[in-house]
Amino acid sequence: MSTFYDDPVHLVRGEGAWVWGADGRKYLDCYNNVPHVGHCHPRVVDTICTQAATLNTHTRYLHDNILDYAEALTALFADPISTAIFTCTGSEANDIALRMAAVATGNTGIIATDHTYHGNTTAVAQLSCTNPPPGGAGDHIAFVPAPDSYRPLGGISGAPHAQAFAKSIEIQIATLKARGHGLAALIVDPFFANEGFPDLPTGWLDPAIAVVRAAGGVIIADEVQPGFGRLGSHMWGHERIGFLPEIITIGKPMANGHPVGAVLTSAELNSKFRTSFRYFNTFAGNPVSCAAALATLKVVQDERLMENADIVGKYARAGLRDLATRHPCIGDVRGSGLFFGVEFVLDQTTKNPATNFTKRIANAMRERGVLLNFLGVHYNVLKMRPPLVFNADNVNFMISTLDAALSDTPLA
Amino acid sequence: MSTFYDDPVHLVRGEGAWVWGADGRKYLDCYNNVPHVGHCHPRVVDTICTQAATLNTHTRYLHDNILDYAEALTALFADPISTAIFTCTGSEANDIALRMAAVATGNTGIIATDHTYHGNTTAVAQLSCTNPPPGGAGDHIAFVPAPDSYRPLGGISGAPHAQAFAKSIEIQIATLKARGHGLAALIVDPFFANEGFPDLPTGWLDPAIAVVRAAGGVIIADEVQPGFGRLGSHMWGHERIGFLPEIITIGKPMANGHPVGAVLTSAELNSKFRTSFRYFNTFAGNPVSCAAALATLKVVQDERLMENADIVGKYARAGLRDLATRHPCIGDVRGSGLFFGVEFVLDQTTKNPATNFTKRIANAMRERGVLLNFLGVHYNVLKMRPPLVFNADNVNFMISTLDAALSDTPLA
Repeated sequence: MSTFYDDPVHLVRGEGAWVWGADGRKYLDCYNNVPHVGHCHPRVVDTICTQAATLNTHTRYLHDNILDYAEALTALFADPISTAIFTCTGSEANDIALRMAAVATGNTGIIATDHTYHGNTTAVAQLSCTNPPPGGAGDHIAFVPAPDSYRPLGGISGAPHAQAFAKSIEIQIATLKARGHGLAALIVDPFFANEGFPDLPTGWLDPAIAVVRAAGGVIIADEVQPGFGRLGSHMWGHERIGFLPEIITIGKPMANGHPVGAVLTSAELNSKFRTSFRYFNTFAGNPVSCAAALATLKVVQDERLMENADIVGKYARAGLRDLATRHPCIGDVRGSGLFFGVEFVLDQTTKNPATNFTKRIANAMRERGVLLNFLGVHYNVLKMRPPLVFNADNVNFMISTLDAALSDTPLA
Repeated sequence: MSTFYDDPVHLVRGEGAWVWGADGRKYLDCYNNVPHVGHCHPRVVDTICTQAATLNTHTRYLHDNILDYAEALTALFADPISTAIFTCTGSEANDIALRMAAVATGNTGIIATDHTYHGNTTAVAQLSCTNPPPGGAGDHIAFVPAPDSYRPLGGISGAPHAQAFAKSIEIQIATLKARGHGLAALIVDPFFANEGFPDLPTGWLDPAIAVVRAAGGVIIADEVQPGFGRLGSHMWGHERIGFLPEIITIGKPMANGHPVGAVLTSAELNSKFRTSFRYFNTFAGNPVSCAAALATLKVVQDERLMENADIVGKYARAGLRDLATRHPCIGDVRGSGLFFGVEFVLDQTTKNPATNFTKRIANAMRERGVLLNFLGVHYNVLKMRPPLVFNADNVNFMISTLDAALSDTPLA
């Protein structure tokens, strides 16, 4: 595996928003969304220990945990989303979602953005333009340019940007029909995390969704990154941008690191999928996985971590905007809740991406004890996505460290 | 999900080879290989608790556990099998294995038996003839008749049976070449578990393997069911039948229920795969998963569970053969180590499968407190695959219960 940073971090311990290296050094974790409610949250750990010591088996037997969790989880979605199929990973969830969309529509064509990532299975890995499989994706997949609020399509933000996105989808629908696949689904992360989380207003996706549905397709919302309250304002990315998908996939933060994912949909589509495909997953939905996921969800709710994400995220972006007044390399500050970052440019007028500089800053921050990373279409967006227990002190440390790193790192 | 048994079991607790229902009733678990070293083995549970409370993160950071486990695991295989890629499930492992075979050969054609199962992803689920996806498998997949030692191909067992199997592979290689796919791999469970674990001697697969390799293909051994000492005589199914595959996949029993799988291969092929496909799996190889897997492996070794599987399995088959002298419905007793069963027939001469009877016996055993299930080409093979801590007392209880169930259940 390729590791993060020029000098990889060797970790041995984690607690809350902090991790410790083998050399005893402490790092502020501004990046990991998997430990959603904080590294080694005692309530989640205790739940895993208790259930692992009691029973762990599969879903061919009855068990209360899968029912309790499925009820708590589906209660977080609007009608008709009322069922869940559990998996072990977000990749497995998206792999099911593609088949579900085919069952729903009778078609196989899939549209994704040209800078997304939806997982690692043979079927799902083809949805990546940035790391395509040898020979490229199958011709049942078509890509559209990723939205970019800092450099909007056609140079105009707001409604024209949204219309341009919808237009490019319309063109690819025609392509998929011409190739004989028809349209099954548009699959999107409704926060466009890998695309660099552009700042898109509520309703921005409406024109695109209308085009997809008019063509008989469904929307798969990949909530693996934005879900479970991270965005502060809403529990889910699709709520924030204002629509209800037919199919929703979740994963990473769901059980604070225990391998759990799921696909949610209506009872009707779930049933159609179940009768078309025999699907069984040995480890998925087991008593330990469901206990860990339920404990994680309860911590989010009981510790009001969505509200914390909202408050602390706003404070962090205010701090970054203040930094931007002193560091012209910061072209844009954006995000929602505890998913935010800054886009580095060589020049604020030309918006030329400062790609190499961004990588150097990520490494400089690691050297100074702050873990974060970068992404976006030009790989010039510093990505921060800390555990939801991140607080104002953590923000202050991150901002002051970034201030120093920016001051000491030459732009060119 | 469809559950086991006409009256599904609602489980609440497990310990060793026993599980308890919500009504307090105790069941002997003769079926579950996932709790490989026994339900809730304290050493595995303690390891999971300790690591979950210390750190759980992904493989973009360095951590000792993945290295310690990878070293312990790869030491169990002959050269040149020396590397592992970790996953969360056996399905994910097989999904990688197919891509690895394509990288190794430049071809995409896959041959499997007509009664196998290798997992649930879009790519891998197509390898099932018994539960095919809508529209069937892609035409890059070809099936050959499953081996059957009780009703051998062409009616002759031993070498002619093995030659007939190899011949059917040869025919399908030609089919795949004619379709333009060429041959990438033969994928087999070397114990043919889903096919009804036919009794095949060492070397039986040699003619088939020779045909595959002569055509430039590789062998993927799916060790998800037979692996980790279950067969008593050997750690792996491929060792028992006497060959070394190019690619090996493992899963279910690997971490006693914690979601862990892996693909093993040579350093050369691993490297080829890595450079052709970007593969990252967020949960796979994490510190908790690797700790759980290492603890499970150490229990297998320290408690000499492979030896136990050998001794107790032989004792169980002797008991079943004794039962067969009094119950003519038992047409065949077979298996290896703690993977064994009996094949029920309506008539020992015609060998007509007693399919409905077998299902009734599985349900009758559940009513009498023994959990097992059935499979095989005719679904008339009672399948027993208990945790490896299964002992002689457990065998005695299973045999006496089966004796009573057979006496009380009419064959027709």
